[in-house]
Amino acid sequence: METQLIGVDTSGRQVVDLTGAVSSFCEGKGDGLVHVFAPHATAGVALMELGSGSESDLVEAVERLLPRDDRYRHRHGAAGHGADHVLPVFISPSMVLPVFDGTLQLGIWQKVVLVDTNEDNPHRTVRFSFVSG
Amino acid sequence: METQLIGVDTSGRQVVDLTGAVSSFCEGKGDGLVHVFAPHATAGVALMELGSGSESDLVEAVERLLPRDDRYRHRHGAAGHGADHVLPVFISPSMVLPVFDGTLQLGIWQKVVLVDTNEDNPHRTVRFSFVSG
Amino acid sequence: METQLIGVDTSGRQVVDLTGAVSSFCEGKGDGLVHVFAPHATAGVALMELGSGSESDLVEAVERLLPRDDRYRHRHGAAGHGADHVLPVFISPSMVLPVFDGTLQLGIWQKVVLVDTNEDNPHRTVRFSFVSG
Repeated sequence: METQLIGVDTSGRQVVDLTGAVSSFCEGKGDGLVHVFAPHATAGVALMELGSGSESDLVEAVERLLPRDDRYRHRHGAAGHGADHVLPVFISPSMVLPVFDGTLQLGIWQKVVLVDTNEDNPHRTVRFSFVSG
Repeated sequence: METQLIGVDTSGRQVVDLTGAVSSFCEGKGDGLVHVFAPHATAGVALMELGSGSESDLVEAVERLLPRDDRYRHRHGAAGHGADHVLPVFISPSMVLPVFDGTLQLGIWQKVVLVDTNEDNPHRTVRFSFVSG
Repeated sequence: METQLIGVDTSGRQVVDLTGAVSSFCEGKGDGLVHVFAPHATAGVALMELGSGSESDLVEAVERLLPRDDRYRHRHGAAGHGADHVLPVFISPSMVLPVFDGTLQLGIWQKVVLVDTNEDNPHRTVRFSFVSG
């Protein structure tokens, strides 16, 4: 299976655009499905529009729905870090996307993003894998 | 890759049953995985029981968790429209389902649905793609 | 397509570790994608760290975000059971994971879990399917 592991620096960013990297990976690969996967316990992969404020709206929604306080039993790291460990259950780190003739088939406003609210570790990896259709 | 793009009219509906269309697409295709994908920035694809009130329960939950008010920085469209742009991060527009001998393998109560709270645009598309196993 | 349906007993557990079962299924299968699927209308499949308290944190978050009270129109079962039917829209029962040389490729802290808050039915099934890459 064709696969690639890329490094992602999330310093100061909770939403990181992966669209260019996924598109580059798919080039020349024909038709099939590409799998985008974050092998981390505190990150998710999502599709969303970027550049119109939705990144901030998402970060606010995550903080409101999973408050960064001391309610969590997960006690490693800072108190609010427990929220980071619940996040990937609601924002899955696994995403499948269609590819035709080596071109990622997204909607006009869709971007592939890594969502990572864990600011303690800015060094992330994301794996792309391709299965021909 | 075998693929099909269908049109979906969401007029007056926030949860639209796609099960029949997915099943029809899979007919005759043998064993594999079918990918159901909404190429939109304000819609998701989900599995749920229909007909027992859960559609309304889902709509209420979405409105409660992502209130349609003026809190959003995404300022295009109506004020509450910012919520529509956060929705697909929590309800992904990408879903993979198993197929055997051309038959979609769902649980007895599961239906494939498009979740779309954006009432400004009732003309949607959904893409089905099939990869043999 | 290589596939396996396993039984899962969720008695007294809302988060059940499936990692060993998925790994065993993948052994000897080479490179590809494995699909993990719960054919139920009240369960989800997720990736998370186990053993540090996050299971309890997840259960608390689900109960807070989808309260088990009488607000639901889904009237089968106990009043709070309506929440179980909204859960799989936010925690999808479908998950795809990468496999290389028969080995499931998870992050060091990631475990594959079944999330099932429906305590009325402890007899669950999960289907694994493998597509070569």
